[in-house]
Amino acid sequence: MSITSTPTLRGQCIAEFLGTALLIFFGTGCVAAMKLGGAELGLWEISIIWGIGVSMAVYLAAGVSGAHLNPAVSIALWLFGSFEGHKVPAYILAQVAGAFAAAALVYGLYSSLFFDFEQAHQMARGSLASLELASVFSTYPHASLSVGQAFLVEVVITAILLGMIMALTDDGNGLPRGPLAPLLIGLLIAVIGGAMGPLTGFAMNPARDFGPKLMTFFAGWGEVAFTGGRDIPYFLVPLIAPVIGACLGAAGYKTLICRHLPALAGAACAADEPKAEAERFTEHDVTAHKAH
Amino acid sequence: MSITSTPTLRGQCIAEFLGTALLIFFGTGCVAAMKLGGAELGLWEISIIWGIGVSMAVYLAAGVSGAHLNPAVSIALWLFGSFEGHKVPAYILAQVAGAFAAAALVYGLYSSLFFDFEQAHQMARGSLASLELASVFSTYPHASLSVGQAFLVEVVITAILLGMIMALTDDGNGLPRGPLAPLLIGLLIAVIGGAMGPLTGFAMNPARDFGPKLMTFFAGWGEVAFTGGRDIPYFLVPLIAPVIGACLGAAGYKTLICRHLPALAGAACAADEPKAEAERFTEHDVTAHKAH
Amino acid sequence: MSITSTPTLRGQCIAEFLGTALLIFFGTGCVAAMKLGGAELGLWEISIIWGIGVSMAVYLAAGVSGAHLNPAVSIALWLFGSFEGHKVPAYILAQVAGAFAAAALVYGLYSSLFFDFEQAHQMARGSLASLELASVFSTYPHASLSVGQAFLVEVVITAILLGMIMALTDDGNGLPRGPLAPLLIGLLIAVIGGAMGPLTGFAMNPARDFGPKLMTFFAGWGEVAFTGGRDIPYFLVPLIAPVIGACLGAAGYKTLICRHLPALAGAACAADEPKAEAERFTEHDVTAHKAH
Amino acid sequence: MSITSTPTLRGQCIAEFLGTALLIFFGTGCVAAMKLGGAELGLWEISIIWGIGVSMAVYLAAGVSGAHLNPAVSIALWLFGSFEGHKVPAYILAQVAGAFAAAALVYGLYSSLFFDFEQAHQMARGSLASLELASVFSTYPHASLSVGQAFLVEVVITAILLGMIMALTDDGNGLPRGPLAPLLIGLLIAVIGGAMGPLTGFAMNPARDFGPKLMTFFAGWGEVAFTGGRDIPYFLVPLIAPVIGACLGAAGYKTLICRHLPALAGAACAADEPKAEAERFTEHDVTAHKAH
Repeated sequence: MSITSTPTLRGQCIAEFLGTALLIFFGTGCVAAMKLGGAELGLWEISIIWGIGVSMAVYLAAGVSGAHLNPAVSIALWLFGSFEGHKVPAYILAQVAGAFAAAALVYGLYSSLFFDFEQAHQMARGSLASLELASVFSTYPHASLSVGQAFLVEVVITAILLGMIMALTDDGNGLPRGPLAPLLIGLLIAVIGGAMGPLTGFAMNPARDFGPKLMTFFAGWGEVAFTGGRDIPYFLVPLIAPVIGACLGAAGYKTLICRHLPALAGAACAADEPKAEAERFTEHDVTAHKAH
Repeated sequence: MSITSTPTLRGQCIAEFLGTALLIFFGTGCVAAMKLGGAELGLWEISIIWGIGVSMAVYLAAGVSGAHLNPAVSIALWLFGSFEGHKVPAYILAQVAGAFAAAALVYGLYSSLFFDFEQAHQMARGSLASLELASVFSTYPHASLSVGQAFLVEVVITAILLGMIMALTDDGNGLPRGPLAPLLIGLLIAVIGGAMGPLTGFAMNPARDFGPKLMTFFAGWGEVAFTGGRDIPYFLVPLIAPVIGACLGAAGYKTLICRHLPALAGAACAADEPKAEAERFTEHDVTAHKAH
Repeated sequence: MSITSTPTLRGQCIAEFLGTALLIFFGTGCVAAMKLGGAELGLWEISIIWGIGVSMAVYLAAGVSGAHLNPAVSIALWLFGSFEGHKVPAYILAQVAGAFAAAALVYGLYSSLFFDFEQAHQMARGSLASLELASVFSTYPHASLSVGQAFLVEVVITAILLGMIMALTDDGNGLPRGPLAPLLIGLLIAVIGGAMGPLTGFAMNPARDFGPKLMTFFAGWGEVAFTGGRDIPYFLVPLIAPVIGACLGAAGYKTLICRHLPALAGAACAADEPKAEAERFTEHDVTAHKAH
Repeated sequence: MSITSTPTLRGQCIAEFLGTALLIFFGTGCVAAMKLGGAELGLWEISIIWGIGVSMAVYLAAGVSGAHLNPAVSIALWLFGSFEGHKVPAYILAQVAGAFAAAALVYGLYSSLFFDFEQAHQMARGSLASLELASVFSTYPHASLSVGQAFLVEVVITAILLGMIMALTDDGNGLPRGPLAPLLIGLLIAVIGGAMGPLTGFAMNPARDFGPKLMTFFAGWGEVAFTGGRDIPYFLVPLIAPVIGACLGAAGYKTLICRHLPALAGAACAADEPKAEAERFTEHDVTAHKAH
């Protein structure tokens, strides 16, 4: 390895901003297409667009910031990986700002369809009924679920997300996935969505949910955007549960899988020395390669 | 090859448990999403989620256990590959336990939707009608099929599954598929599901079917979960037929294809010396590479 | 290159038989699932299952026979590639036999659903109306199309198929696609199906159409299976047009694209010395690699 | 690098002609299948067929012309990449001609279905209502959008297209995507379509829109094909907006991402020395490789 310079934190924040914006652009865009544009998109279609949208965002930001695009990922990689703690706040801010900006852009591009829909359905923005359109941008739980149940769902699926991201990017676990890894992460998100989407809308990412929720708050949906019409304000669930889930998933992968990999290959599991974040998707584990 | 240690059997069982749990989580989850969550998922969408779910499970477990995730695979690789026989019972136990656990988890996360659905449709759990919801978790045959016909279907499709898995992971058959192999296995399962799904629900895996069936038995569906309302208890079909099919498929690949590969490349077909299971998805056949 | 033996013609015919059987199994299976099994599969779903089914068949047969799986491919590669002419009849026979056998297998597995459907719809096998079920196995044109128009469609799409297959497997055209090539061929078939499927059912392969048509003839559909209720017996179209199209496509690729590739890389275009067929998916063009 | 000759401009124009023709063939073909052939294709299905169709076109033309297939790409790569300006007019002409020819071919193959549809719906070609069928070939905006809003949408999505194409083909940004790149470009187009399709039909390509529009003008739709029934003739939007968007996207990628890549890897960003276009999809950045 002889990369001569590492990206600046400022550059990394730009990459996190753009990457998160990109995934929100595709993800909320397709829900707008379904709810406002008359597009027949089922759960799988929505899920695969979210998933591939995330893949694209990872390809965009990978080389600069390591493409976290998710505060839960940044926190879990800080606690259980080698991400430097002092960068966490800046990354999170950039992610939330990117998600906010993209939601605002999608809102702008679809604005006339929003107005037409609200007029046609006599829907007053800010009412409980208007959550149907707020859900273009951020997640609300299935009516049958309590807030506690939704919390549990988000913990479980984010744990699976992080455990699998670590598996997919672990060059010591089977053959290194190389440039396939970001695509596989997208497919992972798609199948999580396909399996659990109806329950909580598979947020799994505080920035993905909070940024756009904040946008809807300002765009006229007001308080109901945050509460979701629940006694316990729902916005707390996709803010907190994914962080807990991500840590469980990362710890779980290290304890249950990584530790059992063949010794040389698994060396990466133990290694916690700081690593330039830009190398997450660039560097193949050298020991694994030597083993061939 | 200089991997210095091989995974312990305990580690491999954990990997088989987690991998099988993961595929059941995605697979039964998407059927729950369709039947309870109002998701419009057709046969292809269900099949591709099952398939990619299996891909993810293979990527997770590949480096540790070789990612069998299926008793029929373990048995076929023992009889026709180089998997060590003394590990077979432990692998199978871990696979069934993982499938059971994941079905229980999906049941827990979707529980309130189960209750709401049963109430809305006045469906008594344990009745013949309640099989509609039991089929979220395990497979039952098309009403037009006899148990014997279903048995035949499961034999045929598991034979195709195993033959193709051996083709896809045979580094001497065309270019080695490298990190693409688990994804291709998922696509294979998806097209099997798309072609034969309506007949038997493409079980092809005793653990995938029996673990969740056992869970539904305990969760209140009782005996009907096992019999499927048939004179010959249906649970025997996905328990036995896939094992027979897997052996036919593995033997078929070795006899009909592998033997005809160009000599150096095909050397792997003859070789039956024990090989660390963790190498199934890590080691490229050396002779094939030298041939380039 | 030091492959020490080449596969026998007998081995290659087995591979062509199995490969063609596999693609027909998936392809006609999914149409049966749609028409008889109540599966909601639209044009794209049918097309992608056909496509990935072909990918699987190519992965299976690639190392032994070069995975033609289509008489039009064998003839075009003989005339415009380096396939040995004396093998053409054997390959074609194996392909047609494989397609016939797989259609019979799918018919057998779905037989009770065929009978139930015919009874429910009072459909007499062999009548014009019964073509609806014969079309599970082989192709018939859109009612608005004349036989001549259908012929033209099949010529055009098979030309595109062959031209693109040559592009995808030409290691001198962009980066070698390596183990991705069979998957890309499947996606190619899927988009051809998605764009032109309603016109002729995208046969593009005499064996794919004639083998299963012969099976339906014997299975009770009789003469109408061959004529398709047209004055000019329709079975001639998918028998002849794909061969013409394949030759046009192969010649077109060589003349219009291959000739303009950078010199060293493009050397392969001129080279017509015989090449072991098993190398089609195994050998990277050496000159192209040296150029890097 | 020792490629001994570079393709002639004539060869490159043939490749651009064929590549653009191919993507229009698949793309307009699937819309014809939906509107005339009774195929149930939703927004995602249309988008993924367009996307994979583009992937195929890129694989076809990559080695000869660099596979621009889009005047906006040619112009952006001339201004912000290393494409030679004197080739721009010839490339654009070839692209528009290819798009025109493919639209004519699809029209020809589907012609009897066009006539039947118009007769059944008593639709007079050239009337405002007949835009429904003209939209098989080229794009018109959602009724709720003003021409200005549509312009903005096309600018934004083409900027995303170009920025992401540069990211996906930048060997210094994460692991080089190698032969995956054209497939990923196709998936990118699919998710753009899935997110923004209902607004403007995701033209993003002056040739893709103008060529087929010209064909419909001659085929009887006349002036309304160009105006789209708007006061400001709509054909100007997909002619101009994509060029602006492409330049913004290319400049944005260079400024915001490329500049922040690790130094050696990012060297490619600064490099503006002319590069043979055929190397866009063939040459891995050498410095990036050395860094491994």
